[in-house]
Amino acid sequence: MADFRPAPELDVTEWLNTPEPLSLSALRGRVVVAEAFQMLCPGCAQMALPQLARVHEQFSRMGVAVLGLHTVFEHHEAQGPRSALEAFLREYRYSFPVGIDRPAPEGRGMPVTMAAYRMEGTPTLILIDRHGRLRRQAFGHVPDLQLGAEIMALIAERDAA
Amino acid sequence: MADFRPAPELDVTEWLNTPEPLSLSALRGRVVVAEAFQMLCPGCAQMALPQLARVHEQFSRMGVAVLGLHTVFEHHEAQGPRSALEAFLREYRYSFPVGIDRPAPEGRGMPVTMAAYRMEGTPTLILIDRHGRLRRQAFGHVPDLQLGAEIMALIAERDAA
Amino acid sequence: MADFRPAPELDVTEWLNTPEPLSLSALRGRVVVAEAFQMLCPGCAQMALPQLARVHEQFSRMGVAVLGLHTVFEHHEAQGPRSALEAFLREYRYSFPVGIDRPAPEGRGMPVTMAAYRMEGTPTLILIDRHGRLRRQAFGHVPDLQLGAEIMALIAERDAA
Amino acid sequence: MADFRPAPELDVTEWLNTPEPLSLSALRGRVVVAEAFQMLCPGCAQMALPQLARVHEQFSRMGVAVLGLHTVFEHHEAQGPRSALEAFLREYRYSFPVGIDRPAPEGRGMPVTMAAYRMEGTPTLILIDRHGRLRRQAFGHVPDLQLGAEIMALIAERDAA
Repeated sequence: MADFRPAPELDVTEWLNTPEPLSLSALRGRVVVAEAFQMLCPGCAQMALPQLARVHEQFSRMGVAVLGLHTVFEHHEAQGPRSALEAFLREYRYSFPVGIDRPAPEGRGMPVTMAAYRMEGTPTLILIDRHGRLRRQAFGHVPDLQLGAEIMALIAERDAA
Repeated sequence: MADFRPAPELDVTEWLNTPEPLSLSALRGRVVVAEAFQMLCPGCAQMALPQLARVHEQFSRMGVAVLGLHTVFEHHEAQGPRSALEAFLREYRYSFPVGIDRPAPEGRGMPVTMAAYRMEGTPTLILIDRHGRLRRQAFGHVPDLQLGAEIMALIAERDAA
Repeated sequence: MADFRPAPELDVTEWLNTPEPLSLSALRGRVVVAEAFQMLCPGCAQMALPQLARVHEQFSRMGVAVLGLHTVFEHHEAQGPRSALEAFLREYRYSFPVGIDRPAPEGRGMPVTMAAYRMEGTPTLILIDRHGRLRRQAFGHVPDLQLGAEIMALIAERDAA
Repeated sequence: MADFRPAPELDVTEWLNTPEPLSLSALRGRVVVAEAFQMLCPGCAQMALPQLARVHEQFSRMGVAVLGLHTVFEHHEAQGPRSALEAFLREYRYSFPVGIDRPAPEGRGMPVTMAAYRMEGTPTLILIDRHGRLRRQAFGHVPDLQLGAEIMALIAERDAA
């Protein structure tokens, strides 16, 4: 499986819902499920984030790291403030860690991590294996049945290795 | 039906999705369906506003006035800016008029119209008859079947009068 | 409104969930909501019958007569026996009256009442006003918001008359 | 994993949706997902069978055997005839193989396979590993995310073995 490229490191300015900042290098050895989202993106609020909460609920106890990545690439003044994101997470009772993607140097457009992954938009699901390799990147909705299987396939690689 | 009190006038600082400001006095003679909401309230985003969009779709052509009222009473800095609300309405493609309830004089807590109606929270549905009387105020979810019946009952009063 | 034709009488061989047989003539003066269905029709089991149960729950107390009509026009040997229909109604806990449409004389194809209404298939919703006139016949799904409004419009005609 | 008992063989009188009868012994070497159901059981028709169709769609191409088991233990005269089950499967467009569990000798009560598994009712989900061992038996609903993970865990045992 040498054909999977390393997942680009997360370039995050602030972390919410976690006492310590996270990084992919520190998570090496664990399967990582990340969801890039914007709080005002309907597909994120209605589908992807409720699904991420289910993933967090089910797979955290199996050692999987589950996290959100707030990748604001439109409506910056509305979605940009940390206070807005905090209010959003509290209202929806999301308890997984969320990192705020570093804004582009020019202050507009796609933030740094989102650009490094060449994402097409939000929501984008990302699966990273125990070796830090990017195994799956999906723009839009992935059904629960399929997502459960994909995560478990990565978990099972430990025993096979 | 002299036992219904007049619906308090809307005290709105700005209107979105409409070329002209609205007022209950100008809407006299029409049935009015209004939904008080906050953009970061999950019950509003997931249930009440999609329902209001269905009401707008179905009943506008029958002369019913359908409108939203943004009643920010928590997370003011996150939900307060007009730009945030505009982004929210655009992302969710809501085309009904939305008024921004006038903030409380002290800048915190319940805004003016919300207080005049003594609302318990968001979402709150409001039905007003052709005579400007408050016929229904409901905090939380009202099923579609019931809401359709209640709106039609007010429409039908015209013929009965 | 003289342009609405009289609703053809129900030609039913047996009634379930009711101590007495029903007839449209005996229901004159009441609004009638009827749903033609087959127990093995997916659109009936998943959408139309749960909706009819909601209509029964909400509108019975307002004097509306709510009933099902089992119109078997395919898979006769599977859906035909009264015992099968009884088991179906019991399992799904449907408590509204259900009439079994009289089979066609030749034993195959569309039963008698279904043919009299020239239905296209199942589910078919039927609304009948207080004067026994057929006011609405719809093949397929009618949204709750619209159905609630249509039923209420017929209820409200009493006061207007 | 010597603590998993062998899955009792399926005792089936007839198979639908398959040119050849199936048996667990012939399926040895493959992961098996089976759902015991009754066509008039609401939890089966509304939840478990649509889920089994999703499992069939996703996992068949990975070599998983997906099948239904019609375990009639109530309303025998309504659910018993093969023609009723055939009509049901055709109407709902279910294409996975379905076996009809052998009726109890006395003709009433729990059929033979259902009794061998000591099932509590329908729907009951059954997962069998490549060695023919019963790895999971669940009465009621299992969420898609979890089911996808459980099936994949069994698939992954091949590589680990």
